[in-house]
Amino acid sequence: MRDLAIRDATRADIPAVVALLADDEKGRVRENAGDTLDAGYLEAFAAIARDPNQRLLVAEREGVIVGTFQLSFLPGLSFKGAWRGQIEAVRIASHLRGQGLGRLMIEWAIERCREHGCRMVQLTTHKTRGRAHAFYERLGFEPSHIGMKLQLGGGAV
Amino acid sequence: MRDLAIRDATRADIPAVVALLADDEKGRVRENAGDTLDAGYLEAFAAIARDPNQRLLVAEREGVIVGTFQLSFLPGLSFKGAWRGQIEAVRIASHLRGQGLGRLMIEWAIERCREHGCRMVQLTTHKTRGRAHAFYERLGFEPSHIGMKLQLGGGAV
Repeated sequence: MRDLAIRDATRADIPAVVALLADDEKGRVRENAGDTLDAGYLEAFAAIARDPNQRLLVAEREGVIVGTFQLSFLPGLSFKGAWRGQIEAVRIASHLRGQGLGRLMIEWAIERCREHGCRMVQLTTHKTRGRAHAFYERLGFEPSHIGMKLQLGGGAV
Repeated sequence: MRDLAIRDATRADIPAVVALLADDEKGRVRENAGDTLDAGYLEAFAAIARDPNQRLLVAEREGVIVGTFQLSFLPGLSFKGAWRGQIEAVRIASHLRGQGLGRLMIEWAIERCREHGCRMVQLTTHKTRGRAHAFYERLGFEPSHIGMKLQLGGGAV
């Protein structure tokens, strides 16, 4: 995984990011990565781009986007007013999984959280993603919590 | 639980909110609710107050703050660019637990998430908080995920 660059996504990257989100057993039914990009993706990107506490990242190699994740910095009163870093929507191109790219991305995210003064980094993974749990535990994350979701729209988690 | 008002916290409410955070088996070791308020709490409140996607709420009855929680609205590309609502740091005065106050607070939060156009509401609870899991499941939340935390500072989750 030499020559890997992790950088903030631009508007032009959104089709590639959506393709990565859809390249997943759960994303396949959630996303629309067809020729016409759903307007919701661009609105979401605009909301992220104007919020200094939200970053949408892409991992690029030889000009090709091969990974993505979102990093949020959350203020809060708990722990004497500690900031938290939160990682969401981690995806790696299916043909590149298992080669250390995810580790580079998450270590990069942890470093940004340290720089921001966060006291902890948090994320949730679906109970069925057993390989992801082991992956995050190897990086030092503790599976100390239950992640609960309430759907307000239609569709599965 | 008549005459309960749920409203955004003001700076003057912070000592009462910190007292609620500390009035908890886990909060007791995390927080400092002594006479001199830790500056971190006020800095965190300022960060929340200036961010339109962060709300620190208090539940007030007869002029006394009896509950608190934080509500965050998170933009994201997943699910065709869906907003998520996230609930953190839910606390109720210990002498008022089990009387329906928590239900009123969470239902209020869910309603705000609907108004904001969120597709889901999410939260995590520590694995040891069994009563909280049952409480959220009664409100329709599904325990579908594992919540993972990486501590960057000292202390326990």
